Amino acid sequence: MMKIYEEKTAPNARRVRMFLAEKAISDVEYVHVGLKAGENISSDFRQKNPLGKVPVLELEGGEFISESMAICRYFEVLHPANPLMGSTALDQANIEMWQRRCEISFMNLVGMGFQHTTGYFSDRMTPVKEWGEECIKLATKFMSFLNDHLANHEFVAGDSFTVADITAFVSVDFARVVHVRIDDEHQHLLRWYKSIKDRPSAQA
Amino acid sequence: MMKIYEEKTAPNARRVRMFLAEKAISDVEYVHVGLKAGENISSDFRQKNPLGKVPVLELEGGEFISESMAICRYFEVLHPANPLMGSTALDQANIEMWQRRCEISFMNLVGMGFQHTTGYFSDRMTPVKEWGEECIKLATKFMSFLNDHLANHEFVAGDSFTVADITAFVSVDFARVVHVRIDDEHQHLLRWYKSIKDRPSAQA
Repeated sequence: MMKIYEEKTAPNARRVRMFLAEKAISDVEYVHVGLKAGENISSDFRQKNPLGKVPVLELEGGEFISESMAICRYFEVLHPANPLMGSTALDQANIEMWQRRCEISFMNLVGMGFQHTTGYFSDRMTPVKEWGEECIKLATKFMSFLNDHLANHEFVAGDSFTVADITAFVSVDFARVVHVRIDDEHQHLLRWYKSIKDRPSAQA
Repeated sequence: MMKIYEEKTAPNARRVRMFLAEKAISDVEYVHVGLKAGENISSDFRQKNPLGKVPVLELEGGEFISESMAICRYFEVLHPANPLMGSTALDQANIEMWQRRCEISFMNLVGMGFQHTTGYFSDRMTPVKEWGEECIKLATKFMSFLNDHLANHEFVAGDSFTVADITAFVSVDFARVVHVRIDDEHQHLLRWYKSIKDRPSAQA
């Protein structure tokens, strides 16, 4: 059976779990890797991913794939039904554009905001508090941008649920770790958030 | 005719130019956008990309696609011959993994290193010098990692030239702006770099 090495509460692990739940793929065994304890940066784990990041997919043939979006891509290509990364060239490009916007200008900023302001991983990186605070400000700003966008769109990238919704949704929940929550005035973001939260995959 | 709004010397613009050159796609008009002058953050340009980033692809139907990798994806799907993003599920995942490693742990760090240490865009962002210096250190470390990887691989992601080579190659050249160059001892990285530099697309 395929294995995924991860820590369930980590946002990237959640992206992959949601993706697989939406695809109804269940023949995967999850193996816990303790991030705070540094299991992911052990020499043993670096055989699976030399950069020491999770999640990592291990195929039955023994190959390792890391990077959440690369893992999702693997399953998207093998299971094209119910596409979450688009079908036509324009769809695929539009979804990738929105996935990246949410990842680069939101998820990654929340992540850096958390790591640089809390020093959670100060045993393995150099936190720069001023930068972390700036990241949190920018992530908050992105939520406002996303709210405006969702005023005219049911989902993040067009008319159906896609991987862009997964990244945005996981990031909204993740943002709680830096005390950023959806503003009551952001009614479009709130409407969208509730609709995604109601999907069974949100519990994956 | 399709248009691409960009500034030729910007690394993301170069990624797209190289990709199109490798695909022998030439029916695209390039439109210059002055980044230092802030043309990309004007309200006019934000109609094309609300986040004010380049490059942006404008299709003949008037649709706009931003994010370099989304633009490349568009052309990859329409022109599948000579795949640069892989064919099988495992190929596609492996290439996306390496593309992302090079982007996240190298290109983006060089970019932040440049912006945060020089204050080049201090009219529109808050540079944090200490963070910029840390990014440069981490980017330098990645070049060493890449050198080790290339000891056993002809290209970044397997046996043929892919978009992962484009990201890595553009990043090596981009790293000069923060005075990071290939170490003379990194013979594998140097061998690979020279082989990519010899490709016509490197001049695109």
